[in-house]
Amino acid sequence: MSPIIILVQPQIAQNIGKVARAMLNCGLKELRLVRPGANHCHPDALALAAGADEVLQKATLFETVPEAISDLHQLYSTSTRHRDKIELQLTPKKAAGLFVKAIARGQKLGILFGPERSGLTNEDMVLCRGNITIPSNPEFSSLNLAQAVLVLAYEWYQASCAAPSVTLKYGATTLATQGELWGFLTQLEQELDQVDYFHVAHKKPKMLRTLHNIFSRIPLAAQEVRTLRGVVSDLVAKKRRR
Amino acid sequence: MSPIIILVQPQIAQNIGKVARAMLNCGLKELRLVRPGANHCHPDALALAAGADEVLQKATLFETVPEAISDLHQLYSTSTRHRDKIELQLTPKKAAGLFVKAIARGQKLGILFGPERSGLTNEDMVLCRGNITIPSNPEFSSLNLAQAVLVLAYEWYQASCAAPSVTLKYGATTLATQGELWGFLTQLEQELDQVDYFHVAHKKPKMLRTLHNIFSRIPLAAQEVRTLRGVVSDLVAKKRRR
Repeated sequence: MSPIIILVQPQIAQNIGKVARAMLNCGLKELRLVRPGANHCHPDALALAAGADEVLQKATLFETVPEAISDLHQLYSTSTRHRDKIELQLTPKKAAGLFVKAIARGQKLGILFGPERSGLTNEDMVLCRGNITIPSNPEFSSLNLAQAVLVLAYEWYQASCAAPSVTLKYGATTLATQGELWGFLTQLEQELDQVDYFHVAHKKPKMLRTLHNIFSRIPLAAQEVRTLRGVVSDLVAKKRRR
Repeated sequence: MSPIIILVQPQIAQNIGKVARAMLNCGLKELRLVRPGANHCHPDALALAAGADEVLQKATLFETVPEAISDLHQLYSTSTRHRDKIELQLTPKKAAGLFVKAIARGQKLGILFGPERSGLTNEDMVLCRGNITIPSNPEFSSLNLAQAVLVLAYEWYQASCAAPSVTLKYGATTLATQGELWGFLTQLEQELDQVDYFHVAHKKPKMLRTLHNIFSRIPLAAQEVRTLRGVVSDLVAKKRRR
């Protein structure tokens, strides 16, 4: 179960298509349309959906907002217009966190988006638990309909399918052990000794620390350590051949 | 200072315009283009920029990626294609947090986006500190160029201009005091006493608790409390008039 996107009187078929694409990108599949001014299965909509046809084909149509929301437990609006209205304002991230918890408790949630030009009416807004405001540049804050849907859907996906925030991907290899790294550092030191790199004896410890520090700060893969060993061997071999 | 968006060989003027709009929505202003296949000041680009003309007009052009990034301290790629490459993968949110810290230390950062169809080459990817992966539906994960820029720019804006995640906006009024709320609850109780609502005496405390609980859970504004008082007064007055 995931939040339901409800577009009130969307006017442009392409926008409905773009919304479907943004939804499916983030795993949202249920779209409701209240008195759309365009056919959501028009080729223009399908073209911009870029493959998210199922979202458009399964979209349901309603005459009024109250009919479109009657089975929902919680409804949120999205509006950037300033209104003289008492309302709870949430960031998309905060809202997404609430959605995950409410859905885990078996609730059905909807997010209401107004027509492209005019936005939601006050009559629609007062049916909502709160208004989700996308933080943006106060001097240039107008997102288009599909961009706004994407931000909310993206935060939903983040909150519901928490991915690790950082991963080091090694492909076919693995993180080098400290032993493997030490093997390389020792090889490097020996070869540098051979070429008299540490010619001022008392400076050697500090110079060595500098080198150790460089390579220890990178989370090197085993394969990369082998590459570095090969680089040093080859540099030396070529030097000796000369 | 904010991250610099670098588009490598973007092919469609409208996409460059949409990128400019998404950037300015989130306060990003510096756009660099490497061998663009379209004129970024073409009317098609300006139309889709929807007012973000300054981003397009100030965009700078480069022949190669190394030239476009030479003054940067850190560079990140954005690619969804699986590569057999050792790389640090970050979510947009994690990356944005790192960007804020690095910029506070005076570093210049760039984010690299590849051409619409083919994406970044491996040659470009290996110049990057890490790859930012937008978490999305694994069965339908392709975001378009401007949508990808929007997600990263949105996270940057969130991280750099942390807005409070929930706000209750009262407009011209203020949060009701507990005294104001209690005044209403007392009025309600008195009027209900008058109409013998609590006719089973020993149940009154529980019935009253239920009512108190309902109104105490809503963060009511002072004006709303006055509205509720008026509602009760008028209901009673009309009843008395009958």
